[in-house]
Amino acid sequence: MRAVVKAASAPGAEIREVPVPTPGAGQLLLKVLRAGVCGTDLHIHSWDRWSQDRIKPPVTLGHEFVGEIVELGAGVTEFRVGERVACESHIVDGHCIACRTGNGHVCENTKILGVDVNGGFAEYVAVPWQNAWRAPANVPLDVQGIMEPLGNAVHTAFAGELAGCRIAVTGCGPIGLFAIGVARAAGAVQVIASDVSPYRLDLARKMNADAVIDVSKIDFAQRVNELTDGRGLDGVLEMSGSPQAMRDGLAALRNGGRMSMLGLPKEPFELDWNRLVIFKGITLHGIIGRRMYQTWYQMDNLLRSGRLDVRPAITHVMPMEKFEDAIALLRSGNAGKVVLVPWGQEG
Amino acid sequence: MRAVVKAASAPGAEIREVPVPTPGAGQLLLKVLRAGVCGTDLHIHSWDRWSQDRIKPPVTLGHEFVGEIVELGAGVTEFRVGERVACESHIVDGHCIACRTGNGHVCENTKILGVDVNGGFAEYVAVPWQNAWRAPANVPLDVQGIMEPLGNAVHTAFAGELAGCRIAVTGCGPIGLFAIGVARAAGAVQVIASDVSPYRLDLARKMNADAVIDVSKIDFAQRVNELTDGRGLDGVLEMSGSPQAMRDGLAALRNGGRMSMLGLPKEPFELDWNRLVIFKGITLHGIIGRRMYQTWYQMDNLLRSGRLDVRPAITHVMPMEKFEDAIALLRSGNAGKVVLVPWGQEG
Amino acid sequence: MRAVVKAASAPGAEIREVPVPTPGAGQLLLKVLRAGVCGTDLHIHSWDRWSQDRIKPPVTLGHEFVGEIVELGAGVTEFRVGERVACESHIVDGHCIACRTGNGHVCENTKILGVDVNGGFAEYVAVPWQNAWRAPANVPLDVQGIMEPLGNAVHTAFAGELAGCRIAVTGCGPIGLFAIGVARAAGAVQVIASDVSPYRLDLARKMNADAVIDVSKIDFAQRVNELTDGRGLDGVLEMSGSPQAMRDGLAALRNGGRMSMLGLPKEPFELDWNRLVIFKGITLHGIIGRRMYQTWYQMDNLLRSGRLDVRPAITHVMPMEKFEDAIALLRSGNAGKVVLVPWGQEG
Amino acid sequence: MRAVVKAASAPGAEIREVPVPTPGAGQLLLKVLRAGVCGTDLHIHSWDRWSQDRIKPPVTLGHEFVGEIVELGAGVTEFRVGERVACESHIVDGHCIACRTGNGHVCENTKILGVDVNGGFAEYVAVPWQNAWRAPANVPLDVQGIMEPLGNAVHTAFAGELAGCRIAVTGCGPIGLFAIGVARAAGAVQVIASDVSPYRLDLARKMNADAVIDVSKIDFAQRVNELTDGRGLDGVLEMSGSPQAMRDGLAALRNGGRMSMLGLPKEPFELDWNRLVIFKGITLHGIIGRRMYQTWYQMDNLLRSGRLDVRPAITHVMPMEKFEDAIALLRSGNAGKVVLVPWGQEG
Repeated sequence: MRAVVKAASAPGAEIREVPVPTPGAGQLLLKVLRAGVCGTDLHIHSWDRWSQDRIKPPVTLGHEFVGEIVELGAGVTEFRVGERVACESHIVDGHCIACRTGNGHVCENTKILGVDVNGGFAEYVAVPWQNAWRAPANVPLDVQGIMEPLGNAVHTAFAGELAGCRIAVTGCGPIGLFAIGVARAAGAVQVIASDVSPYRLDLARKMNADAVIDVSKIDFAQRVNELTDGRGLDGVLEMSGSPQAMRDGLAALRNGGRMSMLGLPKEPFELDWNRLVIFKGITLHGIIGRRMYQTWYQMDNLLRSGRLDVRPAITHVMPMEKFEDAIALLRSGNAGKVVLVPWGQEG
Repeated sequence: MRAVVKAASAPGAEIREVPVPTPGAGQLLLKVLRAGVCGTDLHIHSWDRWSQDRIKPPVTLGHEFVGEIVELGAGVTEFRVGERVACESHIVDGHCIACRTGNGHVCENTKILGVDVNGGFAEYVAVPWQNAWRAPANVPLDVQGIMEPLGNAVHTAFAGELAGCRIAVTGCGPIGLFAIGVARAAGAVQVIASDVSPYRLDLARKMNADAVIDVSKIDFAQRVNELTDGRGLDGVLEMSGSPQAMRDGLAALRNGGRMSMLGLPKEPFELDWNRLVIFKGITLHGIIGRRMYQTWYQMDNLLRSGRLDVRPAITHVMPMEKFEDAIALLRSGNAGKVVLVPWGQEG
Repeated sequence: MRAVVKAASAPGAEIREVPVPTPGAGQLLLKVLRAGVCGTDLHIHSWDRWSQDRIKPPVTLGHEFVGEIVELGAGVTEFRVGERVACESHIVDGHCIACRTGNGHVCENTKILGVDVNGGFAEYVAVPWQNAWRAPANVPLDVQGIMEPLGNAVHTAFAGELAGCRIAVTGCGPIGLFAIGVARAAGAVQVIASDVSPYRLDLARKMNADAVIDVSKIDFAQRVNELTDGRGLDGVLEMSGSPQAMRDGLAALRNGGRMSMLGLPKEPFELDWNRLVIFKGITLHGIIGRRMYQTWYQMDNLLRSGRLDVRPAITHVMPMEKFEDAIALLRSGNAGKVVLVPWGQEG
Repeated sequence: MRAVVKAASAPGAEIREVPVPTPGAGQLLLKVLRAGVCGTDLHIHSWDRWSQDRIKPPVTLGHEFVGEIVELGAGVTEFRVGERVACESHIVDGHCIACRTGNGHVCENTKILGVDVNGGFAEYVAVPWQNAWRAPANVPLDVQGIMEPLGNAVHTAFAGELAGCRIAVTGCGPIGLFAIGVARAAGAVQVIASDVSPYRLDLARKMNADAVIDVSKIDFAQRVNELTDGRGLDGVLEMSGSPQAMRDGLAALRNGGRMSMLGLPKEPFELDWNRLVIFKGITLHGIIGRRMYQTWYQMDNLLRSGRLDVRPAITHVMPMEKFEDAIALLRSGNAGKVVLVPWGQEG
């Protein structure tokens, strides 16, 4: 079969022929129908320090995907051939304290599909049955393909109160865009989005943000103050990893508010803890992955009901064969979520 | 001034001249602009057993109202003459353990406006400043007038999870109708309403319930099962006080779901605890009043944002002079919320 | 091997030779070291209506036990031969919505060891590896043998706030006795126990209840009022299934308190919802099983630290061969938890 | 009367004669019985930058105290002359959104007794009745005198789960010492304390810490790993304001754990957010003041029950006349909590 493979310890990736995987005990073999490209794929492609430490080539990339079950490994009773499933990318051990107490998303033995083991940028992929989630049938295939990063947005948004709250999303990359939609669908009464890119702010508007702030031109906290009649924010969903966005977000929170942080800062940075966190009585959440599988259930409910529509955040759908073009497009910054169509699925 | 007074220990009420109240220390004198009629007013009017035990005539009725501040009692610094305020009806002591720990709504020394002390079915009413909440300016006056019962709906809905949840509202009287709107605005992905009255079910549809069930004709749990693809409800907001509605609601909850009960049963009733509560791992909340003042803040946010519009639940606006007609109308069952316009406010 | 088998659809049970089980894929074969006798075993022995509906003879009884791993089924990587494990009795499907969202204890496809499949009143038992929990090494073997019912007590106690709270335990059977210890160890500032049996109340004192109430002689709510300086209870752990205990407990709760119900009433019963639940703003929890596996983790921490010592609640340790004596003892009411020692483990 | 007054915008303080305050409307006049000296008093005494910005001399110092009511201001109905009360030091406005929604501790209009208005280092002090809390009668007077800082410890500890948890307290100043006691009494199964001072670590042992770590000599995270059998901490109560303590604490938390921060860092500092917060799924709480008045209720319950005894943390009781000696003692580092006895209360 064809696959996008990180073949060598160097920048780049290549499309090559590899064997179709054989599903092991408890695994499903999926024919991949759609796959999303993530910022992590950019890092692996450019072979940055994190990639050098983590990736052991050769490995098939791709950790966001939906597929159709074509074969069941030994002992699988929960699924049948022909079902369509989206996949959680974290393969966890299932027996550590974290896994046993509802914190599987921070299992210390996590392996990630498309990072540590072969992923979904391919015609076929094998996954543990536990990682499969039946895709809601009423949702477009392209959306089914990006439930993994959408789950990041759901996890971040649901880490604190949403119903009746004023929420800001700082950073309008794909997950930030998703978070705008999630916060609106889940009962936030005001959703304010910020970024420095006019392209992304335009997408934020298309996701129905109540207001957008171009922080390259406008002071975030001051503008939030105006937009909220001086009440401040109940919550910030931090999606940028920018130290300034974090400081701005904390400053714009009402006393007692919460900030949930999914964006990864490039390096350690300084904070005025007293003024921004302690005196204000703020709660900060570090967020990674998706709650397994509460987040998937919440996302499923939001999608299935039609309350959440993330199609405006998917700006490009292109053949998987053009993986390099997708990478270039993402590097340009003029893209929301990019979805790939595997070989043989173009029709 | 003119007022609707429970004048004697007997059925009925009368409109009579009474002195304009003088605001005491810490009180506000309000010119009443709108007032809502509640089921409690029906009980007082018909002089049922509860009323006989509780009411000490003469007392001016009316516990749902909005007014304009026309005079400040001694020591009031928070408000100014001319501001428009809706009112919490529970006057609590402020110093008991319940009040001191965020449970003022269950203060054991509660006095209720229009029940224990003179209320708002009058041209003027005096209230403690703590009970006043600035009415959101962008909301119609009629809606400002019924924030007290709307707060019951908000309290009930927010007693458990809403965001991303499937919620049923059992009983479509005014508070049930409000609760439909609240649940939708606050992120429920499916809101199912039930009642036995076609009139009320029609109002439920106008409040944008995703589905309505006429339980005089259709089995509630079975219909919910269909509507939720077999998943069951995450929450039930019980607004009817009907034993059957409660049993049906519990049966239709998914395991681990919650029921929040505001409706008052007429008398004690029996439950199959094992099957409906314990084996299912259900959480039940008894709900009374409004959280003081978290509920008001949540309601304010919902209204101010425009996400919540309860106008379809207000079916009649009529002069306060026609109080007896309002009572008759409510007794007929063919009314949602009825709002009264005091003398001098008709224009 | 020897086992206590429900052999026929009639009262009683018999000790007979049965084959040693073969561990299937994902299972562990345990040599049973200790096992606890539960009220459920009494029901099965007496062949009551519930048993007639549920039990399909022949089945080996026993759902509370600790054992040593003597053989691993195919695919088990988490455990090694020689480890000592206590066992969760609920075998759940792992894939339903309840299981996937942290509510495995209310999985609709639950099978129970010793009820639906062969259990631990035997020399050997086979269990899914997921159901095994490494027994804390510093805890006596007899206590390791009853972690399953102890988990019921932990689940009930931890269903609401404990730290700094005044808690009553209504019903001092074994799980009630355990709950006294759990509430104390977990930070309750006052633990009041009630029962009608002087024998059990004596055990409650040995578990360090701060006060005990013989409700055959003393009014519960009045006595609680005295004991709490009029403040009332923050929480009730209902372990009796008695309608009167439930009503008394609700009456003795402070407004806004919680009652967590594990005791199973014999039949449906009536409640004055308005007075006892709604006007007081009470939260009720139906409790079943143990959170999988958060409850086990909490219990493990309590036991491992030495803060919780439940030995006083274990009143009898006797050979499994004397199962009928154990049943008779429990029927007499003069026993706390009874622990059985399997054949070959007596030394 | 005699009082310790910050008389001038310069280092130091002086004992001088000032008029006995007259209680205003809603105020209580207290005869001060005991008062605690706090680190904040050191800052004011040394006239650091914070003090220069905040303090407007002359002001009577002292924000931790207990007193007997000797006179009631107009309109006070809740208290009687002769009652003994401890005092919340934050005078809040009672009407802002924070105050109205249970977050009075972060009211933006807070005035602090002994900082912004005259405090309790005097023979008499006037306080709003809302700030008074009846002191539990069974607690020693010295302990009643330091309920304000004890409340900081309770607030920090109760900001997350305690029951059944492994908790570290980083920093063993008086509030850290109190926190050790609170965590133990409130159900933590292991309480580990750290500091760099042998004197303070010795006090930590006297407060019954399960283990102490001298971080000037031993690696915190590694030692915690040993002490917790590799499980890590469920929670950290950060009382030192030290960047290293915060980093160590985060490193020693299990994934999904919480850190509650009361200690004030001297200046902004850097954090490796990815490694210490985001990838671990940590929750951070900024803590200030005491929940009004939930924290007081919890503290009252802990003290009244006898479960919490903080006497070992009170190392010195001395005449208020010797205020300068108390300051010198605290500067030396060889003191826990220092309690002052006002003029006329020595006997």
